[in-house]
Amino acid sequence: MKLAVMGFGAVGQAVAELAPTLEHTVVGIADSVSAVVDETGINVNDILTKKETDGTVGSANHTDLLDADYDVLIEATPTTLGDANPGFSNTKHALERDRHVVLANKGPVAERYDELQSIVASSNGTIRFEATVGGVIPAIGTIQDYGPNQVSTVRGVLNGTANFVLSRMAAEGLGYEHVLAEAQDLGVAEADPSFDVEGTDAALKGVIIANVINDGGFTLDDASIEGITNVSGSALALAAEDNRTVRLISEATRNHVTVGPKLVPKTSSLAVTGTQNIVQIETTHAGRLNLGGRGAGGPETATAILADVNRLQPLS
Amino acid sequence: MKLAVMGFGAVGQAVAELAPTLEHTVVGIADSVSAVVDETGINVNDILTKKETDGTVGSANHTDLLDADYDVLIEATPTTLGDANPGFSNTKHALERDRHVVLANKGPVAERYDELQSIVASSNGTIRFEATVGGVIPAIGTIQDYGPNQVSTVRGVLNGTANFVLSRMAAEGLGYEHVLAEAQDLGVAEADPSFDVEGTDAALKGVIIANVINDGGFTLDDASIEGITNVSGSALALAAEDNRTVRLISEATRNHVTVGPKLVPKTSSLAVTGTQNIVQIETTHAGRLNLGGRGAGGPETATAILADVNRLQPLS
Repeated sequence: MKLAVMGFGAVGQAVAELAPTLEHTVVGIADSVSAVVDETGINVNDILTKKETDGTVGSANHTDLLDADYDVLIEATPTTLGDANPGFSNTKHALERDRHVVLANKGPVAERYDELQSIVASSNGTIRFEATVGGVIPAIGTIQDYGPNQVSTVRGVLNGTANFVLSRMAAEGLGYEHVLAEAQDLGVAEADPSFDVEGTDAALKGVIIANVINDGGFTLDDASIEGITNVSGSALALAAEDNRTVRLISEATRNHVTVGPKLVPKTSSLAVTGTQNIVQIETTHAGRLNLGGRGAGGPETATAILADVNRLQPLS
Repeated sequence: MKLAVMGFGAVGQAVAELAPTLEHTVVGIADSVSAVVDETGINVNDILTKKETDGTVGSANHTDLLDADYDVLIEATPTTLGDANPGFSNTKHALERDRHVVLANKGPVAERYDELQSIVASSNGTIRFEATVGGVIPAIGTIQDYGPNQVSTVRGVLNGTANFVLSRMAAEGLGYEHVLAEAQDLGVAEADPSFDVEGTDAALKGVIIANVINDGGFTLDDASIEGITNVSGSALALAAEDNRTVRLISEATRNHVTVGPKLVPKTSSLAVTGTQNIVQIETTHAGRLNLGGRGAGGPETATAILADVNRLQPLS
């Protein structure tokens, strides 16, 4: 497939690097200020070098990329809330040109899922978005394959930063502020960690899953959200005495999305440590499935994106 | 899709029952002695009742089923070794008619994978076989989506009977013969348990995975196999003192398939209990994935089969 990569941070760069190993061709790359298009195939290493030295990828602009001759637009611009732009408009543009879109950007499928599906309905292209939930974990595709009506509840640990903080606090008996600072030093938490520690990111992922199992209808406004900022060391110590611990659990069902700290047995599949993610899928006929793996990172997210690309049908 | 169900044991029956909930139509059913074909759609409940009362499903024969107007043949006859018939010849027949085949039968993809792929290459149909490994766990599809060249090693607990015996022995301090008899009483082990406890079943699954990650080349003869019949209670007790336990692990890599009892930490993802299965996929770029769930059972296997059906493209 011919790929156009929109967004050239860690994820976009990893997609561009891995694509050739799966026999895909990168025909366009855009970062936030520039773009490069070559429909015969871009030399990715050259562009990675140029990005590092010049801070740009080329002399073209976004419109050139959006209008290039690609099969799949990889939407890897940063997640935004509300109108979810520019991710939403980029996705719309590609679908209206009858191209496929694979999203790493959570905004369009969390905030404007229903609109997006109506655009998909009149396009020859389609959208996939495995990378928006649980990094490399194949949660969305598995639900789609089983049939959303075969799934009653999906819950999991979907934010690696919050999980790192909680598991370090529990393991070392350290306070929240201390561990958060450590996570920031390690690059596990952002300078402004609110998106992760207040539960917004985990909620967006819950909303996306709710949209998949309910065929739409949910936005971030529908989620009930509590973060980890009030989880105390003493609460974790009490939990440990009872052989339990606390995890930030996202849950999506037929009628709600919730995110909040929950007591879980230490031996539970949900008690993953560090930045690991876990997704539990409750099926109607086949019990519970546990899917665990790395929830973030450039190559991890790129692996999920390219798995989506591998599932797309050639455009007619 | 229009489904023809070949084999009407627990798996075939569950497929026929669940198919309508996913908007598929059952147009034919065959057991080992009879068949029924109705291209307008079979009333599955009627046939389940007939099977229970008469022991047969209808007055037609296998050839009628194989030649019926279906989109997908569900191959759910018992697994056989060597020539893997009748599963192999049924699959070949359907592919030569340019139909899809979804297999629950391990024989054809373990024993004659290369031959099968050459038949697929000249067919408009294709084969899928998620249900042959790990029951409801989406292992095969995940490897295919990532790209087999992105996966270095796959290991796991792939036989629920052996795992039930080992985990009961460890938990209760009971001997092998005692727990095996208990498993037979519960229906978890067959009257002749050799296929499970000697590692053959776990090896077939390892061989199938090796064929997927290596694009063929493996049969059961290539597997190095040790069962659980020599695992003693004292070995499990010693392991427990060291916070470890013993599990029957199947492993497939770029150049071998092995099955045998292995020491694993009690906290390892591999230390699943009872009849649960777990598949660990080691990827080149995205670390380790853990996929766990029910490894056997009619509705569980049927869920995997119908997930495969949902992934098939309409026949042109």
